[in-house]
Amino acid sequence: MIRAAVIGATGYAGAELMKLLINHPQVSHVAAATRSYEGIPYSQVYPNFISLHDDVCLAPELDALADEYDVLFLSLPHGLASSAVTEKVLSKSRIIDLGADFRLHDADTYEAWYRTSHHGRALLPRAVYGLSEIYREYIAGASLIANPGCYTTCSILSIRPLINARLIDSSSIIIDAASGVSGAGRKAQTSTLFAEVNESFKAYGVANHRHTPEIEQELSIHEKITLSFTPHLVPMNRGILATIYASVPDTVSLDDVWTAYQEAYSDEYFIRVRQPGDFPETRHVRGSNFVDIGFTIDERTRRVIVIGAIDNIMKGAAGQAVQNMNISFGFEEKSGLDLIPSMPL
Amino acid sequence: MIRAAVIGATGYAGAELMKLLINHPQVSHVAAATRSYEGIPYSQVYPNFISLHDDVCLAPELDALADEYDVLFLSLPHGLASSAVTEKVLSKSRIIDLGADFRLHDADTYEAWYRTSHHGRALLPRAVYGLSEIYREYIAGASLIANPGCYTTCSILSIRPLINARLIDSSSIIIDAASGVSGAGRKAQTSTLFAEVNESFKAYGVANHRHTPEIEQELSIHEKITLSFTPHLVPMNRGILATIYASVPDTVSLDDVWTAYQEAYSDEYFIRVRQPGDFPETRHVRGSNFVDIGFTIDERTRRVIVIGAIDNIMKGAAGQAVQNMNISFGFEEKSGLDLIPSMPL
Amino acid sequence: MIRAAVIGATGYAGAELMKLLINHPQVSHVAAATRSYEGIPYSQVYPNFISLHDDVCLAPELDALADEYDVLFLSLPHGLASSAVTEKVLSKSRIIDLGADFRLHDADTYEAWYRTSHHGRALLPRAVYGLSEIYREYIAGASLIANPGCYTTCSILSIRPLINARLIDSSSIIIDAASGVSGAGRKAQTSTLFAEVNESFKAYGVANHRHTPEIEQELSIHEKITLSFTPHLVPMNRGILATIYASVPDTVSLDDVWTAYQEAYSDEYFIRVRQPGDFPETRHVRGSNFVDIGFTIDERTRRVIVIGAIDNIMKGAAGQAVQNMNISFGFEEKSGLDLIPSMPL
Amino acid sequence: MIRAAVIGATGYAGAELMKLLINHPQVSHVAAATRSYEGIPYSQVYPNFISLHDDVCLAPELDALADEYDVLFLSLPHGLASSAVTEKVLSKSRIIDLGADFRLHDADTYEAWYRTSHHGRALLPRAVYGLSEIYREYIAGASLIANPGCYTTCSILSIRPLINARLIDSSSIIIDAASGVSGAGRKAQTSTLFAEVNESFKAYGVANHRHTPEIEQELSIHEKITLSFTPHLVPMNRGILATIYASVPDTVSLDDVWTAYQEAYSDEYFIRVRQPGDFPETRHVRGSNFVDIGFTIDERTRRVIVIGAIDNIMKGAAGQAVQNMNISFGFEEKSGLDLIPSMPL
Repeated sequence: MIRAAVIGATGYAGAELMKLLINHPQVSHVAAATRSYEGIPYSQVYPNFISLHDDVCLAPELDALADEYDVLFLSLPHGLASSAVTEKVLSKSRIIDLGADFRLHDADTYEAWYRTSHHGRALLPRAVYGLSEIYREYIAGASLIANPGCYTTCSILSIRPLINARLIDSSSIIIDAASGVSGAGRKAQTSTLFAEVNESFKAYGVANHRHTPEIEQELSIHEKITLSFTPHLVPMNRGILATIYASVPDTVSLDDVWTAYQEAYSDEYFIRVRQPGDFPETRHVRGSNFVDIGFTIDERTRRVIVIGAIDNIMKGAAGQAVQNMNISFGFEEKSGLDLIPSMPL
Repeated sequence: MIRAAVIGATGYAGAELMKLLINHPQVSHVAAATRSYEGIPYSQVYPNFISLHDDVCLAPELDALADEYDVLFLSLPHGLASSAVTEKVLSKSRIIDLGADFRLHDADTYEAWYRTSHHGRALLPRAVYGLSEIYREYIAGASLIANPGCYTTCSILSIRPLINARLIDSSSIIIDAASGVSGAGRKAQTSTLFAEVNESFKAYGVANHRHTPEIEQELSIHEKITLSFTPHLVPMNRGILATIYASVPDTVSLDDVWTAYQEAYSDEYFIRVRQPGDFPETRHVRGSNFVDIGFTIDERTRRVIVIGAIDNIMKGAAGQAVQNMNISFGFEEKSGLDLIPSMPL
Repeated sequence: MIRAAVIGATGYAGAELMKLLINHPQVSHVAAATRSYEGIPYSQVYPNFISLHDDVCLAPELDALADEYDVLFLSLPHGLASSAVTEKVLSKSRIIDLGADFRLHDADTYEAWYRTSHHGRALLPRAVYGLSEIYREYIAGASLIANPGCYTTCSILSIRPLINARLIDSSSIIIDAASGVSGAGRKAQTSTLFAEVNESFKAYGVANHRHTPEIEQELSIHEKITLSFTPHLVPMNRGILATIYASVPDTVSLDDVWTAYQEAYSDEYFIRVRQPGDFPETRHVRGSNFVDIGFTIDERTRRVIVIGAIDNIMKGAAGQAVQNMNISFGFEEKSGLDLIPSMPL
Repeated sequence: MIRAAVIGATGYAGAELMKLLINHPQVSHVAAATRSYEGIPYSQVYPNFISLHDDVCLAPELDALADEYDVLFLSLPHGLASSAVTEKVLSKSRIIDLGADFRLHDADTYEAWYRTSHHGRALLPRAVYGLSEIYREYIAGASLIANPGCYTTCSILSIRPLINARLIDSSSIIIDAASGVSGAGRKAQTSTLFAEVNESFKAYGVANHRHTPEIEQELSIHEKITLSFTPHLVPMNRGILATIYASVPDTVSLDDVWTAYQEAYSDEYFIRVRQPGDFPETRHVRGSNFVDIGFTIDERTRRVIVIGAIDNIMKGAAGQAVQNMNISFGFEEKSGLDLIPSMPL
């Protein structure tokens, strides 16, 4: 049994972490830490937690928290984690950072896309990229885990087996994705007010979204890959769908694609590959840690079309963070994550 | 460990039951039965169940199912259960009926409001009204449990303590309630199409909704009560809120109201009474079996205003059904129901 | 032809006013004024206006605007209008104030409910309450029109004929209402973020909402009326539904109620009274200036149930403001308002 | 002044046509015809039309209607129009068909994609493809106009200028689009129930959607084009967004793209081309006949990304149908269509 603290516990990913950790069989105690609501009962911020977690929120002081908790989850705006995490903190507690600061191996790339300085360059080599299914062996025992982004988790896991098996033209990849509004966070801002988002659909971050270099980093297995990534905003709370296009040589068959996915994922509990031509919807995974993947080859254009679906707050954030905690501490990987997707409702 | 079958497993309440039962620690095996999809894998109807419940749907034959399952949940349109349940079935298995057929003690009242004949009059005396917190002692060991309606559960639990304590004018009760669209079921019909419901709000069943006599039956503790009940439709998937008005004598204080709720519910895990003036929202209970209740006295009008919130598919249907199963079989009452409401998302 | 300016043109009511005025056949020129976006093209704030209104936003200086515009619409947070409107401004231009400052005849009542000082007491006697159908003769030629609130417009018009005809027990009135999210305005705040509002339903302002004294003021025809008013928040952009309960003496029949509505509204273009037992939904009036009213008498409880529906941004704000402009300037009352409700979509 | 009838007036496109035609200054009389509600007042089907159009629905007999109406709009499931339209009907009245039957020049292609026989091959040569901005000169005076599909209108208008100007690699076109739920029609079916669509996002018709050949037909200007088209379903009532990718040679600049759009559309009232890097959202055009187009070149991948937005029921159906009526009869093209998009609400 371990003790866990969530720093930034009142954001959307933080609140989901609280729920998962409170019900986790290997976690004996959970603390919520947050600057905005320090000293206020967590259940006052989120009344759904009444009688379930009435403790007051703690100050987000990593050093002090590291003395008392075995693992610290950081759910903070980018730039804060790289300043706050230190060797001293890492010597006392494990860090699972849900932000972007330690995801990119190259700090220059980070600074170019995020337009800010990186304050934790020295720690970058210690960070493990927490894409659970791909880097499981590195995550085990790791003390600084960079939890992947939501779009990136969905995109990488969906198309990576085909790149790995050299089945597609790697210069032809286009990722057209869409996310529920929770991806924009809980900050008070006009652009995510109900009446601004409801009954509309839009693209954003066209040709410059910050998840692009993260996706490219993880897909550049055999060669450096540059791709198109366009996110869209869907009037719903949670869920991500990525529709991915890539050209396939005439020699590649649907069977080859199927085989590539089977070789990659047949033993993975959280990845469910559909029969060819059967595609996932975001509700198929809502509220769970699953990644559902469907695919077909369009013979008219000789493009493979792959569609991946995740819950952006679960496998795209809190769920994968707990999965990484499980791996890091040697718990059963699905411990606390055996949740059935909430479909139909 | 028991074995459970859900008849009508592809309706919304049925599918929620499947999720709860599959994850229930005292249930060793779960079967889905349904006329419409007999022989088809359940996960084909609901792809979120892929790898979690791929068994084919069984025929909804109660007699045969009763041979193999310890408890049968019936989630059927009204009128079907009263025909299908027999002494023979009850001798072999316990029945938890989520429909309306066995809720009203008086078959004539049933026939008047439902405008159909009652086909199970002989069994009515054996049926226990499954409002768990009120009839717990009768539910224990019962073989025919009539699971209450969604609006009724919310309404009765919210106002009953004040009637019980004789704090309100029982002729003055008005219940103005609202429900998410799942309450209308999964039947293909124009009136619940997305574009017919989205971006609108309406009342329905004004002065004639069938849950009215059920609420009146359960609130007529000291005397026969007649009340106003008006349901509304909210463009959301799940949740019920009941806003209840009643006149209070000048001698009744807010403290008296508070005390009445404490006496009724202070030991109830699933009922959370808020501080005076603090009111629940449906998201505070979404995805859980909780009933949240808030209240105030409007001194200007000397009316008490009580607001109750439940998840219509959980405490209003599948959740309470599992709670009743737990009580009936002597399991811990919250077994399989220790779910944290899904707020914020 | 007149010239009109909208002060606070980027709020939701202000933007709706812009649309109505730009297409109004008697308005030759429309200006948008707003502090936040002064100097910026209006179509940059609201790209739907590209090519339709690309003028820059003006400063919200009433005195200067009154020199150039025949009518000024004020769509400002409460407290601002009462400070900004002066005799001088009124001598040059007509004011239609969509805020609360001039609605209540009694400044003390205003200060008690709004918890702020009233800065325009001297002008109160000049203000006409702009409930078009009721005060038409006073609105004609008026220079200071207090446009009613959204809940108040719907509530007053729905129940007033029955009070006027002395058909109901005036101490028994309960108004249970619900609004779309636009009623909360466009201010950046956490509580109206998409993911906080979507998939939930709640009451707010229970027993203390500021529209209560306004409703009571206008319903106190024969005697001072005190009533219950409870607003709720619906996850939709626009629309208000008010469900109103009142006790009726045994001598009152459904015909009496019908007659009262006919006498009050049979000549009113914007008020559509339904056949007994037929009730409006908010989509029946969405995007229009209509008020739809349905009613029945519940014989079991001897209560009349009246349901009124309006579009909160139209008849509840911008639409009625234009209707008042039409009346004030002697235009045809439905000029620029002959819009068909947007149902089904 | 002309007389117009809508056959299939209770579908979503049909109802929108009714609204547009009732308010159209050149239309003296409008009739609703529909098999399902024949003899029933239209305002009983759609209560928003009470007092605005209370006429009963007529039988959908084209021959009889053609005797009395100058133009017949057909809003029917595919396959019905090609059987019902005859030379005789065309000799008496003009037909604007909102269905698919006369859109594809090649009946074999129609039969291959729609998997049904084409019953009006003889009339195909007389049909004009009603993409107003492209075929205006043919539409003028035409008696059989095939109104384009919703996805097709958005896709074709968005990318056509770049193909016309030979700026893109025509083998590289990928159209990733999304639509509101009204696009699926008003048929009672489980898949478009509120609770099945709300809080989810999915692709459908992957690699086989029937709008594909229509888009390809209209984009094959210089050469036969084959492209990828993937539609998605958004939980909203109305709106279509198309995100289009195509490779551009290194010699092509952003200025070249800008120039191509200006040459194509600078005189078009209904097409609004945005500044480079500024992209439309569906709410920017909601409730209007506008097509908003944004674009950029991603220098990293040398792909142009074009995003087009329309209201699927307006420019994608009823709006363009009225625009075509205007052109056909020589009315001002925007007559009855000068509607400001409904943003922000």
